[in-house]
Amino acid sequence: MGAVLQDTSESVSIDLKQYMEQLGVQARQASQIMAQIDPRTKNAGLSAIACRIDANREVIKVENARDLQQGQADRLSDAMLDRLELTDGRIDAMVEGLRQVVGLADPVGEISDMKFRPSGIQIGKMRVPLGVIGIIYESRPNVTIDAAALCLKSGNASILRGGKEAIHSNRAIYQSIEEGLLEAGLPKHAVQVVNTTERTAVGHMLNLPEFIDIIIPRGGKSLIERISNDSKIPVIKHLDGNCHVYIDDKANLDKALKIAINAKTRRYGVCNAMETLLIAEQVADSILPEIEKALLAKQVELRGCEQTRKISNNEMIQATEDDWYTEYIAPILAIKLVENMDQAIDHINHYGSRHTDAIVTEDLTRAREFLRRVDSSSVMVNASIAFADGFEYGLGAEIGISTDKLHVRGPVGLEGLTSQKYIVFGDGHIRA
Amino acid sequence: MGAVLQDTSESVSIDLKQYMEQLGVQARQASQIMAQIDPRTKNAGLSAIACRIDANREVIKVENARDLQQGQADRLSDAMLDRLELTDGRIDAMVEGLRQVVGLADPVGEISDMKFRPSGIQIGKMRVPLGVIGIIYESRPNVTIDAAALCLKSGNASILRGGKEAIHSNRAIYQSIEEGLLEAGLPKHAVQVVNTTERTAVGHMLNLPEFIDIIIPRGGKSLIERISNDSKIPVIKHLDGNCHVYIDDKANLDKALKIAINAKTRRYGVCNAMETLLIAEQVADSILPEIEKALLAKQVELRGCEQTRKISNNEMIQATEDDWYTEYIAPILAIKLVENMDQAIDHINHYGSRHTDAIVTEDLTRAREFLRRVDSSSVMVNASIAFADGFEYGLGAEIGISTDKLHVRGPVGLEGLTSQKYIVFGDGHIRA
Repeated sequence: MGAVLQDTSESVSIDLKQYMEQLGVQARQASQIMAQIDPRTKNAGLSAIACRIDANREVIKVENARDLQQGQADRLSDAMLDRLELTDGRIDAMVEGLRQVVGLADPVGEISDMKFRPSGIQIGKMRVPLGVIGIIYESRPNVTIDAAALCLKSGNASILRGGKEAIHSNRAIYQSIEEGLLEAGLPKHAVQVVNTTERTAVGHMLNLPEFIDIIIPRGGKSLIERISNDSKIPVIKHLDGNCHVYIDDKANLDKALKIAINAKTRRYGVCNAMETLLIAEQVADSILPEIEKALLAKQVELRGCEQTRKISNNEMIQATEDDWYTEYIAPILAIKLVENMDQAIDHINHYGSRHTDAIVTEDLTRAREFLRRVDSSSVMVNASIAFADGFEYGLGAEIGISTDKLHVRGPVGLEGLTSQKYIVFGDGHIRA
Repeated sequence: MGAVLQDTSESVSIDLKQYMEQLGVQARQASQIMAQIDPRTKNAGLSAIACRIDANREVIKVENARDLQQGQADRLSDAMLDRLELTDGRIDAMVEGLRQVVGLADPVGEISDMKFRPSGIQIGKMRVPLGVIGIIYESRPNVTIDAAALCLKSGNASILRGGKEAIHSNRAIYQSIEEGLLEAGLPKHAVQVVNTTERTAVGHMLNLPEFIDIIIPRGGKSLIERISNDSKIPVIKHLDGNCHVYIDDKANLDKALKIAINAKTRRYGVCNAMETLLIAEQVADSILPEIEKALLAKQVELRGCEQTRKISNNEMIQATEDDWYTEYIAPILAIKLVENMDQAIDHINHYGSRHTDAIVTEDLTRAREFLRRVDSSSVMVNASIAFADGFEYGLGAEIGISTDKLHVRGPVGLEGLTSQKYIVFGDGHIRA
């Protein structure tokens, strides 16, 4: 269990479990200070970190190059190496991201719903930080900055555990974070990076409910599932999405065409892309050929149910039961005809992943029913599901999308990293 | 593992794990129907259950007498036997409780915060049920009705696991619930009582995250801790409270006296009773003797810090470190003098249980700071902490008080049993 932990400033050899606990204790202490820090100081910290990242970019690139070299030696996939790489453009984006978070409204201390009760007391809610947030992610080193920024702005302390393949990049980035925190007079341990590549560190981290209030895993499904299973700390899950668009027989077909094409082709690798298109069979003859033509022109592979294939002008692949469950994250689309909205809703609630689903219809009653009955974190009417995103929703930056129901659902921004406590005013009131 | 499960109508012998899964599957199915049921039908169900409980009260009392008899044979404590007993008064209270829940506003489908975004889409939130709620409780059979009513009103299906010592009472009560559900045309499995006294049923229940969305344990700390540790399902915890009142040196001493006496003596056995009183040393001479006199007149045992004992007119017991951590739930009070508000806040955040704490002060800046810095689910200014209660807060009935930060904090009413999803309207909008 003894592990050598290389600090940026010193080398220490201590027990790994003890090391993780130490991070936890330090984070808890820092969180108590952070919860009280005024917005101006937090913003000064974010700005200082942005300046440091900008100024230290050569060092960051050198350290990133070490990770890339090691990654090549370890035969990481091209996709992984791409996620790992910090180009000047990506460093610019990190700096810009920090400055955007500065511009967001501070959620902490917001008081709402103050009302007088018959007893004479006045009661409302105050928004407060959660405390300590643990983020566990994979190879992208820019997550280190994005996550640190949102946790800091929301008044939380954070413990960041990045992928082993990005350890040098993360250390270099952390150097800038630490300098920025200290420059602004913020506690050094407001942000901490787990400074070891030992895999068992994650297990220890998940076992610290007294020091960490919430775990947010970011990465592939298997990582997230493993963490959810092992964690003694509540997890806000950011799963991928098997998202649907349903074209109702009362749809305006021009809108339906635009939305279907946008939902599939705007970006293929994102969790809010359409993976299955459902079409009411009454309008399939009118709209399917047009959709097919547009998608084939963009090299999207189509997999249809039997009925879809009958209408199709092309030799469409037969969709199997598996296709309805699949999130392709690729230029592939499953298409199914349904008898009516009920069937569409049943399909979505059965095969979907509770992420984002839309109906295209001009019928008010159906729109209302679809909104009620589809059990997803975002449900849309006559809009492209590509809008499911923190920026588009007005949350500012987002730390991910929750497909769970507890605490926060859908895109998670600063508010999702806070909680509300009750506040009560009296004037010497006592309870009868 | 084979267990004989006595249904009220039939006897079946099946595997326990399988039985619990069956309850889960049935609950999940019922929850999908429940989420769509209109308020009128849910209220009809609640009213029908109220009528049945009233009409079946003789049967309920007979079955309850069996439990009481068994409890006496098993040498349950008097307190436990008292909790177990269903008198006519308690049955009346169950019926009245159901009727009160009928009168509460239905939280499901509530739409809020609809706003237009620069893209042209309109986005807001819709309140929806959580799905399936598992309640695990101890001997009080009236919890069966209270919990069932709140889950039903909030559009959730529920699985209720009461104490083994109340099994006959719970079966009898469930009979009325089932009749009421069917009379109103609600799904039979919208409410289910775990119909076995096998202890391992709880373990199986906690291991059904695919069928149960949230677990709410009600009972003693050890039960709650055990459930939190074992559960694969998120838990909303309802712990007890080590609550404080701090009398600031800027307090109006008349208000302080009234609040301190009310907070301690209104009821001793409740989680929102004051357990430690903190007094700024500048005003201790003026107020402590009066408080002491009033509390001693009510036979409250006082345990003071050294300084408190010096001012005390009586031979006060010396408080130990343990006292600051203790929730007495009894006519005992610990008293400590502090130098200033900072010390009071540090004491509360260190020794407290994050339940409810109050300051008595006329100083605006201190009041604001106390509200911000005290990390409890309810923080009060110049009001008795006895107000910490769902009815007093305007939530209607409460299912308990959460001292956690995620999802819901403080008294948990109907809203705490729901979640919000995003809803989006467009008019054919696509994302650029």
